[in-house]
Amino acid sequence: MPTASSQRTRLRRNPKRGVFDRATIDAILDEAPICHLGFVDGGQCFVLPTLHARSGDELLLHGSAAGRAMRTLAAGAPVCVTVTLVDGLVLARSAFHHSMNYRCVVLLGTVRVLGAPAEKEAALEAFTEKLVPGRWPAVRPPSAQELKATTVLALPIDEASAKVRTGPPVDDDEDYALDAWAGVIPLELTAGPAIPDPRMRPDAAQPEHVRTYTAAHGPR
Amino acid sequence: MPTASSQRTRLRRNPKRGVFDRATIDAILDEAPICHLGFVDGGQCFVLPTLHARSGDELLLHGSAAGRAMRTLAAGAPVCVTVTLVDGLVLARSAFHHSMNYRCVVLLGTVRVLGAPAEKEAALEAFTEKLVPGRWPAVRPPSAQELKATTVLALPIDEASAKVRTGPPVDDDEDYALDAWAGVIPLELTAGPAIPDPRMRPDAAQPEHVRTYTAAHGPR
Repeated sequence: MPTASSQRTRLRRNPKRGVFDRATIDAILDEAPICHLGFVDGGQCFVLPTLHARSGDELLLHGSAAGRAMRTLAAGAPVCVTVTLVDGLVLARSAFHHSMNYRCVVLLGTVRVLGAPAEKEAALEAFTEKLVPGRWPAVRPPSAQELKATTVLALPIDEASAKVRTGPPVDDDEDYALDAWAGVIPLELTAGPAIPDPRMRPDAAQPEHVRTYTAAHGPR
Repeated sequence: MPTASSQRTRLRRNPKRGVFDRATIDAILDEAPICHLGFVDGGQCFVLPTLHARSGDELLLHGSAAGRAMRTLAAGAPVCVTVTLVDGLVLARSAFHHSMNYRCVVLLGTVRVLGAPAEKEAALEAFTEKLVPGRWPAVRPPSAQELKATTVLALPIDEASAKVRTGPPVDDDEDYALDAWAGVIPLELTAGPAIPDPRMRPDAAQPEHVRTYTAAHGPR
């Protein structure tokens, strides 16, 4: 299901790298642990890293109800959410053609504010389960006070585009005769062994969801 | 050497996480392979991932001279560059206190455009050497035409702040009695074995700078 390629999300420089199908967009949103949230306040653009979670056709964002970002977005400011996965360094034979392999989604729009406590709690479950699947049933759920202190926003996944670069370097024809080594150094966000909180009981067993996460995201 | 903590980069929500010293800021800028570049065009904020390199007291950015981002910034638009390193998932005993360990720099300002070909070439050397130290002498340097097609911008590292979270979760006092496992899952961008370009001569040896990079960034 393609999203509308609006004039604003249309790729201008490298249209061959642009993809608009929802499966590609959703996979990038779901894999990346964080996004970068951009908004305008007083004519200045601010870009802040934050957690996100996808719920169907909406991207959920959250933060302190007292914070500037949440207040500005809740008031209807246009937002740009960009999600980037770094996949590798592309080493070409010429300096000019060095690049990155990456997958990126740019999402524009305005948010709706989640009001009902049950809807906010469902969103916080989505955030927790996105961080580490299986985590939600293992922790204390949010109190009424905590829900009240948290603003949850939903951005429709509508005006969206993905940009993807994969594969080896692309050099100028005459440069393939050069002796320079060329290729890709793959990069991946990798989990190390979990570090227990020093304030936990020393005999506390590591739960299945933590073992599963570190095994799935550990070094290849 | 602290940078000015302007009204705009002052942390409002969690001032205890804010740091302003240049050594911390420079270390984050130098470690991160990419940044997120935010600018306003027609009232809408756009956030794009791009490469950066630090040269002393300036952050260098580059792109196609024909692209919208470079043209908008070169025309004097205010810019926000955000650089984020993801260090771990923070698993608390309550859903509410789940968090990330991360290091982040937010840099505001306007750019100067590098004009002289020698200055632009020095900047492209800085980009190439930041990607993989030792790479520049191994590749074909940019031609006059390539330099002309590339816009290089320099943003002063002046109005900047860093935000850092490290260490175990911080739970509410009464939650420490809960049985939930708590701790940190460390995350790190890790290099895999280099993949030679299929169009390279099969007997081409992997150069020292590629071996050094993958060894330094390989799995622990």
